[in-house]
Amino acid sequence: MIIAPPGLKGVVVADTAVGDVRGAEGFYHYRQYSAIELAEQRPLEDVWRLMTDGEMPRTLAEREAFAAEVAVIRAIPSEILDVLPAIAAVSEPLDGLRTALSLAAAGRGMQPNIDIDQRVRRNDALFLCAVTPTLLCAVYRLRSGARPIAPRLDLGYAANYLWMMNGVVPTDAHASAIERYLISTMDHGFNASTFTARVVASTGADLGACVVAAIGALSGPLHGGAPSRALALLDEIGTPERIDAVVRPMIERGNKIMGFGHAVYRTDDPRSVMLRDVARGLGVDERSERLVEFAQAVEHAVVRLLGELKPGRPIYANVEFYAGLVMALCGVPRSMFTPTFASSRVIGWCANVLEQAADNKIIRPSARYVGPPPPQPCPPLH
Amino acid sequence: MIIAPPGLKGVVVADTAVGDVRGAEGFYHYRQYSAIELAEQRPLEDVWRLMTDGEMPRTLAEREAFAAEVAVIRAIPSEILDVLPAIAAVSEPLDGLRTALSLAAAGRGMQPNIDIDQRVRRNDALFLCAVTPTLLCAVYRLRSGARPIAPRLDLGYAANYLWMMNGVVPTDAHASAIERYLISTMDHGFNASTFTARVVASTGADLGACVVAAIGALSGPLHGGAPSRALALLDEIGTPERIDAVVRPMIERGNKIMGFGHAVYRTDDPRSVMLRDVARGLGVDERSERLVEFAQAVEHAVVRLLGELKPGRPIYANVEFYAGLVMALCGVPRSMFTPTFASSRVIGWCANVLEQAADNKIIRPSARYVGPPPPQPCPPLH
Repeated sequence: MIIAPPGLKGVVVADTAVGDVRGAEGFYHYRQYSAIELAEQRPLEDVWRLMTDGEMPRTLAEREAFAAEVAVIRAIPSEILDVLPAIAAVSEPLDGLRTALSLAAAGRGMQPNIDIDQRVRRNDALFLCAVTPTLLCAVYRLRSGARPIAPRLDLGYAANYLWMMNGVVPTDAHASAIERYLISTMDHGFNASTFTARVVASTGADLGACVVAAIGALSGPLHGGAPSRALALLDEIGTPERIDAVVRPMIERGNKIMGFGHAVYRTDDPRSVMLRDVARGLGVDERSERLVEFAQAVEHAVVRLLGELKPGRPIYANVEFYAGLVMALCGVPRSMFTPTFASSRVIGWCANVLEQAADNKIIRPSARYVGPPPPQPCPPLH
Repeated sequence: MIIAPPGLKGVVVADTAVGDVRGAEGFYHYRQYSAIELAEQRPLEDVWRLMTDGEMPRTLAEREAFAAEVAVIRAIPSEILDVLPAIAAVSEPLDGLRTALSLAAAGRGMQPNIDIDQRVRRNDALFLCAVTPTLLCAVYRLRSGARPIAPRLDLGYAANYLWMMNGVVPTDAHASAIERYLISTMDHGFNASTFTARVVASTGADLGACVVAAIGALSGPLHGGAPSRALALLDEIGTPERIDAVVRPMIERGNKIMGFGHAVYRTDDPRSVMLRDVARGLGVDERSERLVEFAQAVEHAVVRLLGELKPGRPIYANVEFYAGLVMALCGVPRSMFTPTFASSRVIGWCANVLEQAADNKIIRPSARYVGPPPPQPCPPLH
């Protein structure tokens, strides 16, 4: 019997070729490539293909073929479209996505991973990933009393996403900023949602069951919930002069500062470093420039104050701090921050599920019973 | 870094007071009571209360109060009822339950487990468990072209379940047999679906997210999928004379024999022992008596042949072998076998989620990267 550390921290539960996080080095990768380099150099669809099929397109023709393959399956299937207003009436976008994908998986007749053609599963994965942004935007719009906007075949993933959300074709700068964010959050080791997807996959369940479960894990505030709260911190501080006065007592009271610290990184989070650059590039008018400068001032002050008040272990800005800023600057409303995270992470979940499913061993750990000792006789009713 | 054994087998990932399985002794318990003793001596609602609140009712008044509390919340909320035909049109009962509960959790406005009144969460749990059998029966009936049947307040859990499924008030013998089956399958250590629910709970996600994820895990054929296949084995054999001729080549070919063997038990599965007795009690006419005798003959022959052809580790009938028989004898159709399992297991999931949520540590293990070494430069497009 092995007693695992709390939260299975540091416990290797599987071999993977999808990617890895090297927390001590501040480096993470998808397959054999630096994730940050991919985000800076490749369109999202290239990286999606890398995650799903194990290889990036090598030629322009391959790139275009994959991009076209995943563009034509963006539309919401009719059995979902009819029910979507009822879903949106009671569901935030992420919960609505959970319900809608659960229904879509059934509607597609997804099969358990027993004697199933692996090309069918790969196409199920592409379908789930392609329809996710469409569903998220549709639920978001229905909740604001607007009509869902159909996907456009002539736009890339990120531009189409912003189009379906806001009904305006975004500037290249905005589309490119969101694209880099999305690529950089596609996958990130065995986080709780990815691990959830793999546990469900280990039972032989169909891809829909795995992704629906992962969405639930991502909806937990300890996992997917922080990007809008990091921005709320900027709101609370308000102006550069107030930084110390607001942040110092927070740290002294032992409050967690949203957007700072990470379970794995012991250095700058490479995603926050990239997104800080992306944000800087978006500071094109006085208002946005001032906001980006303010965010950087808050980052420096928080890191300095944490070092002063909680010395010992340096704490840095995490992905969520600049992610919220980048999304806000590109016109993504706060209620769509975590859903936007989900919209690319689903690609990482699917890559992990396809890999896990090749291993037929069900994940079934143990627990240590610590209650009153059994068996005690069933007491009589008085 | 700890390299865990495949499937986390034998790795203790949490402390629990919900219950435990002692595989070497052929014993399992809920809280401090033998699960089999509970199944034989208590109504399902008493055990449900034990799982959820930690204590069984001590007086008749307490029993009746809890039974009434969970009976009045059996009805399907209107936002689900309207959409249920669309769900049932494309979903098997278990997948339909996944979609419907996902929507129901949103409709109820379930909150993440952050600063939430724990009584609200407890009531969310009762709601999910109470509405589950109603949803399963409604989807099943809609798929057969019949109308859903409303729950009856004057019937206990099991009798009401069979009523909603078939539209006939069952005999006491059938209701009691199904009740014992349901109690005996409420919980069973850290199986894959229970563990899934706990991983999702560890992120602070709401109860609905946890249960929806667990349903997905249970839908995997390596986990919840065998009861009807065990009965299919009886069909395939057909008559007692053919047992050896059918089973021997299966074992020689190395096929898994459905309904035999268990990951944890090294003895008779205590559930199969109890369900064999339950089945015997249901052999009240010539046809059912012959079927029960045939099943026992198959059990003996399979155990004997496995001992002869695969010596070393004795293999016994598991819960699924007699579960299928008991359900069939009580008029549960095969398509409802795994859903019936889900209908009581949800009570165990919720007890585990409520317990896990008290521990704030997110479950985030590690993986060992085995792909080509990074970082390799992003290749150019040709």
